[in-house]
Amino acid sequence: MSSSPMTIRAAIVGYGNLGKSVEKLIRAQPDMDLVGIFSRRSELGTDTPVFPAASAADHAQDIDVLFLCLGSATDIPEQAPGYARHFTTVDTYDNHHLIPDHYATMDAAARQGGNVAMISTGWDPGLFSLNRTLASALFPDAQQNTFWGKGLSQGHSDAVRRVPGVRRGVQYTIPNEEAIVEAKAGRGAEISATSAHVRECYVVADEADHAAIREAITTMPDYFAPYDTTVHFISDEVFERDHQGMPHGGHVVTSGDLGGSRSSVEFVLELESNPDFTAASQVAYGRAAARLKAEGKTGAFTVLEVAPYLLSPVALEELIRRDV
Amino acid sequence: MSSSPMTIRAAIVGYGNLGKSVEKLIRAQPDMDLVGIFSRRSELGTDTPVFPAASAADHAQDIDVLFLCLGSATDIPEQAPGYARHFTTVDTYDNHHLIPDHYATMDAAARQGGNVAMISTGWDPGLFSLNRTLASALFPDAQQNTFWGKGLSQGHSDAVRRVPGVRRGVQYTIPNEEAIVEAKAGRGAEISATSAHVRECYVVADEADHAAIREAITTMPDYFAPYDTTVHFISDEVFERDHQGMPHGGHVVTSGDLGGSRSSVEFVLELESNPDFTAASQVAYGRAAARLKAEGKTGAFTVLEVAPYLLSPVALEELIRRDV
Ligand SMILES: NC(=O)c1ccc[n+]([C@@H]2O[C@H](COP(=O)([O-])OP(=O)(O)OC[C@H]3O[C@@H](n4cnc5c(N)ncnc54)[C@H](OP(=O)(O)O)[C@@H]3O)[C@@H](O)[C@H]2O)c1
Ligand SMILES: NC(=O)c1ccc[n+]([C@@H]2O[C@H](COP(=O)([O-])OP(=O)(O)OC[C@H]3O[C@@H](n4cnc5c(N)ncnc54)[C@H](OP(=O)(O)O)[C@@H]3O)[C@@H](O)[C@H]2O)c1
Repeated sequence: MSSSPMTIRAAIVGYGNLGKSVEKLIRAQPDMDLVGIFSRRSELGTDTPVFPAASAADHAQDIDVLFLCLGSATDIPEQAPGYARHFTTVDTYDNHHLIPDHYATMDAAARQGGNVAMISTGWDPGLFSLNRTLASALFPDAQQNTFWGKGLSQGHSDAVRRVPGVRRGVQYTIPNEEAIVEAKAGRGAEISATSAHVRECYVVADEADHAAIREAITTMPDYFAPYDTTVHFISDEVFERDHQGMPHGGHVVTSGDLGGSRSSVEFVLELESNPDFTAASQVAYGRAAARLKAEGKTGAFTVLEVAPYLLSPVALEELIRRDV
Repeated sequence: MSSSPMTIRAAIVGYGNLGKSVEKLIRAQPDMDLVGIFSRRSELGTDTPVFPAASAADHAQDIDVLFLCLGSATDIPEQAPGYARHFTTVDTYDNHHLIPDHYATMDAAARQGGNVAMISTGWDPGLFSLNRTLASALFPDAQQNTFWGKGLSQGHSDAVRRVPGVRRGVQYTIPNEEAIVEAKAGRGAEISATSAHVRECYVVADEADHAAIREAITTMPDYFAPYDTTVHFISDEVFERDHQGMPHGGHVVTSGDLGGSRSSVEFVLELESNPDFTAASQVAYGRAAARLKAEGKTGAFTVLEVAPYLLSPVALEELIRRDV
């Protein structure tokens, strides 16, 4: 069995939504110290020590795990391998179809530096990935569906805001409850991405424009036309009160026959803040990365390769007593 | 990364509900061969080869993993360590407060034999244990509740059948939906075991006895009096049609604050057959046990110590492409 957990010296690179959430959560861990934040900007408005991103390698000896809180679009592909040569890293890279390439690149870089690179943590990829593998391993012929939401969709909110007359607007993607029931009953193969989700828009606009805006949104090709879309007109006050957050979540539903009986397995997340929960997963997998490195492991790891006890600050003996 | 999975030679000891389910499921695995069943009885009514339980050790060279499908009350404590000295084993031992002792005993026996002993798989303990550890590792101060059901309860069904006038009876434990909503909202600390569950009884009896039976059941101390209990009187035909199965399931609900936002994580099982699903988990962890042994590992392992990819017959590269 494992001994009591180590103390982990942590640092962050990139101080956007995710970096801010990781900062809060590292401070709440019993076994982590926050050494500092590396940024391309010099003023971040935090009392954590801030260092230039370009100087990160100079601090390598003081840091057990570096949280890469950079954008997935270009930052991670360009910069993550460089960090992996100097640090044990953990990222939330979410460009699903490029994850095998990212794995290979990070594996080579981390091995070169004698480090661990924990890739694509968060919730999707991340905890949803773990549940997809776990649940499908139980059934000889699994039917699996992933539903996203209730979640704020940035791309669709932008599309709403481009409609003439819209002063403020947001769009939420919401799983279709009937589709979830169908998936649990094993009829998930017939569910398309469009029938699995409905779209709800909240818009601030002059009353005179409401009809034209509703028509423009619900008939917008690709974005809204194929979906069951509802447009709600609200006041500025309600918009400010209820629509400033970044909620998200979803369901992974897996079901199948087990030789004459059916069973279903469902994993559900309801998140008031997408970056806070993504950070919670990243921080837990950061703990695992530091422990794997301390055990002498090197190279890239996905969440599929991490034993669950490594995520917890509680010692294995106590977890067995408490949770098994 | 791992290479393609190995072929695993599997055997079963104990042919009750669980053993029968494991037999069906081993046959449905692409990477397992079923060598035989060991039993204390000689006639089992199966076309799988049957051997006397007492002769098991003679077959040790032909078997990569032995599924212990024995009762938890006395069989496992008495017999499991003996098997672990000769075989890599996997059990579903579910006596929660004795699991740390079972871990220690199996660890010593398995190390003595150079084997792996995968203990307390199934769903609770098992997949629920994994989710308790995983979800509580995400929150600095997690609130966690486990709800059981809808499930057939053997002990409570026996209590119903002992009531005078009851000809046939079953009892289902059902999670209280309102309590689940409360738990997700972070108010789970106030939920007691009695308020978390309701009890539904289905009884066949003469009409003249109904009122007395309902009164006897709902006021029975400990078993029913503290719970919201409903008694339904049904016909023999309905009893035979609808109440012959062994459904079970439950929810692990975890929630907490992440520095200003709340999130909840829920893991839900709906099982038409408790033994079939317990077997599905046991078989997947049996695969992991055989692989850990092939890697040279020895000793006892809980589900908390198993990386998820080890459960799947699909190679890691393909899992990363498909699920991450
Ligand atoms: N796996 C999952 O479940 C999951 C879920 C959600 C998000 N993600 C991933 O997480 C990544 C990061 O998300 P995010 O919301 O943190 O992105 P973000 O806020 O856009 O931040 C990305 C980077 O932009 C820079 N930045 C942030 N605010 C800035 C500002 N005001 N001015 C100039 N530069 C600024 C920061 O780097 P500097 O400090 O160096 O300037 C930061 O690291 C996303 O790309 C997404 O792929 C994954
Ligand atoms: N972890 C979990 O989630 C979970 C869930 C459900 C159950 N469980 C565990 O699984 C254990 C096994 O459950 P089970 O439902 O398979 O128990 P079971 O049907 O009572 O079988 C237990 C043993 O009794 C013997 N037996 C079965 N039928 C018999 C018969 N007709 N006559 C004489 N002996 C018979 C069998 O051994 P022989 O073949 O040698 O006679 C068998 O191994 C339970 O004790 C429970 O602890 C765990």
